[in-house]
Amino acid sequence: MFDEMWGAIEHLGRDGRTGGYLRDAWSPADLELREWFRQEAERRGLDLEQDRNGNLWAWRGDPSAGDGVVTGSHLDSVRQGGAFDGPLGVVSAFAALDLLDERGAELARPLGIACFTDEEGARFGVPCMGSRLLTGALEPDRARGLTDDAGDSLAEVLRRAGRDPGALGRDEETLRRVGVFVELHVEQGRGLVHSGDPVGVASAIWPHGRWRFDFRGQANHAGTTRLEDRDDPMLPFARTVLQARALAERAGVVATFGRLHVSPGNANAVPGLVSAWLDARGGDERAVRALVEELTAFSGAEVSTESWTPAVDFGEVLRDRLATVIGTALARRTTAPETAAPDLAVPAPDGGEPRPDGEAGRVPVSPGEAGRGQGRVPVLPTGAGHDAGILAAAGVPSAMVFVRNPTGISHSPEEHAERSDCRLGVAALAAVLEDLCRS
Amino acid sequence: MFDEMWGAIEHLGRDGRTGGYLRDAWSPADLELREWFRQEAERRGLDLEQDRNGNLWAWRGDPSAGDGVVTGSHLDSVRQGGAFDGPLGVVSAFAALDLLDERGAELARPLGIACFTDEEGARFGVPCMGSRLLTGALEPDRARGLTDDAGDSLAEVLRRAGRDPGALGRDEETLRRVGVFVELHVEQGRGLVHSGDPVGVASAIWPHGRWRFDFRGQANHAGTTRLEDRDDPMLPFARTVLQARALAERAGVVATFGRLHVSPGNANAVPGLVSAWLDARGGDERAVRALVEELTAFSGAEVSTESWTPAVDFGEVLRDRLATVIGTALARRTTAPETAAPDLAVPAPDGGEPRPDGEAGRVPVSPGEAGRGQGRVPVLPTGAGHDAGILAAAGVPSAMVFVRNPTGISHSPEEHAERSDCRLGVAALAAVLEDLCRS
Repeated sequence: MFDEMWGAIEHLGRDGRTGGYLRDAWSPADLELREWFRQEAERRGLDLEQDRNGNLWAWRGDPSAGDGVVTGSHLDSVRQGGAFDGPLGVVSAFAALDLLDERGAELARPLGIACFTDEEGARFGVPCMGSRLLTGALEPDRARGLTDDAGDSLAEVLRRAGRDPGALGRDEETLRRVGVFVELHVEQGRGLVHSGDPVGVASAIWPHGRWRFDFRGQANHAGTTRLEDRDDPMLPFARTVLQARALAERAGVVATFGRLHVSPGNANAVPGLVSAWLDARGGDERAVRALVEELTAFSGAEVSTESWTPAVDFGEVLRDRLATVIGTALARRTTAPETAAPDLAVPAPDGGEPRPDGEAGRVPVSPGEAGRGQGRVPVLPTGAGHDAGILAAAGVPSAMVFVRNPTGISHSPEEHAERSDCRLGVAALAAVLEDLCRS
Repeated sequence: MFDEMWGAIEHLGRDGRTGGYLRDAWSPADLELREWFRQEAERRGLDLEQDRNGNLWAWRGDPSAGDGVVTGSHLDSVRQGGAFDGPLGVVSAFAALDLLDERGAELARPLGIACFTDEEGARFGVPCMGSRLLTGALEPDRARGLTDDAGDSLAEVLRRAGRDPGALGRDEETLRRVGVFVELHVEQGRGLVHSGDPVGVASAIWPHGRWRFDFRGQANHAGTTRLEDRDDPMLPFARTVLQARALAERAGVVATFGRLHVSPGNANAVPGLVSAWLDARGGDERAVRALVEELTAFSGAEVSTESWTPAVDFGEVLRDRLATVIGTALARRTTAPETAAPDLAVPAPDGGEPRPDGEAGRVPVSPGEAGRGQGRVPVLPTGAGHDAGILAAAGVPSAMVFVRNPTGISHSPEEHAERSDCRLGVAALAAVLEDLCRS
């Protein structure tokens, strides 16, 4: 089923020239993906609900009982992003449920599959919009007023999609149903490559934020305006880019200018405005904040905070439980491959015969490795934000499962996970869900 | 008529939020402007022709006789540009013809009003596209393959507009009709403010060019990619911006990065590609070329030339003739204001009574000023490229008339010319056309 589901969506929103994905929230591609989600829920007899903030929930069992076990991720993408960031978690959720059904697993708790809206913030600038609204971390008034590149507000976009923008905001009823949330995600670094594991568990998410720097000058003709008469905002912007890098190196954090808007944006005009978005993150919240403060003063720009997410520590008990359950499940799979469901056999990366003892199916059992206990998969921190982090910050017990990414590259068409690792991710997630639904 | 014509087009393509104009070639706004041009020609009984490269020509008299006197400019705009750059020359051309008709002037030569296509190059990156194609300065194959932001080629865009892209290229038949070309334009500097004149004549156009710098790196996640693992093209771009300014100051030329494309352009992704357009100009061609060469080596980017226009000297005989004819005409108008046509009376800038001896109508007669002879208006060089420069470079006798710009700002919504100066510009152009049509 994994392959079929993947095949059904991998062309949606794909830019034929670059291979990158364009899946802005509420774009035609996003709406097609949401429709695909609805069909997958229907195919499995799940009850589909769309909450007040546009997040989708597919339930097995009665969620109104509360304390549901929820998994899932998102289907939108950064612009020119890869195929795995988001969809891997959603497709794996459905595939894990199929695996449980094949095994005839009994689920003592309601099981939900979630698809959060606008996780990447590609269109309106604020990441994790759906989960932030759900938990009240984002003011609905502010969300409604956010605009996209075309100048359309979220309120207008929602209305056009047949949604009621007045309904946005913290949603107690939906939240009450979620007893625990587990998000499976492609790893966005090479931690699992270094440890040699196909699957791991998240320990924490770095504190991170996004700031908009507006450098203002005077638009004018590029040929007729003398250098000494110019007020060219490209110059302070350039100095600020270099300063951000220097400050980040000094502070041991990361700082990035990856999005820019130059106005008027003509080759033959001195710009009147350069707007640049700073992304800054690190293990130490004070270091990140100090960098932004110092850079603001240096830049001379008008700076506004677009989002801030404090450090998230996924609960130790939950994450250790996951690391053990997954470690055990994968050990079983690789020591007894003949018991694996045919769909989940572990093929060699070159497409040859399954290699039960190969790299792709290697069982991580070596003791004493950092962040790993006996028979457990590794537990790793990440610099990337996720809906699971937003829910954890709001007090919902949450955890994340990572699937190995051979290059570590993400937010790029080169983002990748081997199919064999994806299947081990599904097996790991199924084991986790079965375990959680038992309690 | 000037006011009516101005009023008929000033809303077309105007961005209500900024007041700037969006009049890309072949956009809906541009097509409306072209339709307006057709109607103005029809209203005056002129024969309208569209040449193989999309330029519009409205003729009084039979142009096939050759040696016609042509005036005009363009109707497209840089993005977020002002109202005057281009349209002032076209509206003034029709208004000048009206003035000649009111006077019953006899025209011994065919008189043409031209509207050149895509002068600004806002959409496809190459300025003066219509005149470059007409004169053969731009290869039609290269033009057809140019793409806009949406990835559409010029060939596709022309086809959609009902034009034949196969017809592009040097057009001898059209060129043969043009005996002389005079383009009226708002000044893009403060030369006439400093000299205290409402109208002047161009001496030369600086050599200028446009280069595309592609800085390539590796797109990746802004949170999870360590600084030392990054290949972030924003850093060499920033260093190149600062170096361009330093080199330009040293060389006494101007250099500008006013257009940028960052890919993927997500706030949470290290860019994979930064494309930046350099505009460089100066009085000394060797200095401009040396700057571009040095900057190319410094940047490490892949650099391609998008356009290059050598220095253009407008013929001395023609420009001096214009300076004298205009000086004489404006002296007559301001020493005998009662003979002026009512539409061309000179109102005070505050909208009060006409001030025949005010700043707006001041007659430039002080001798000995640089570039000015007795009874002549000033003769000034410019850093801006124009279709008149392309025609001059192709051997067509050409000249330009400048109308004062109080702030010197152009390529910006703040670009401006007082209506009183615009009317003096029309009177100046009418005098020039009458003089040229006599010979």
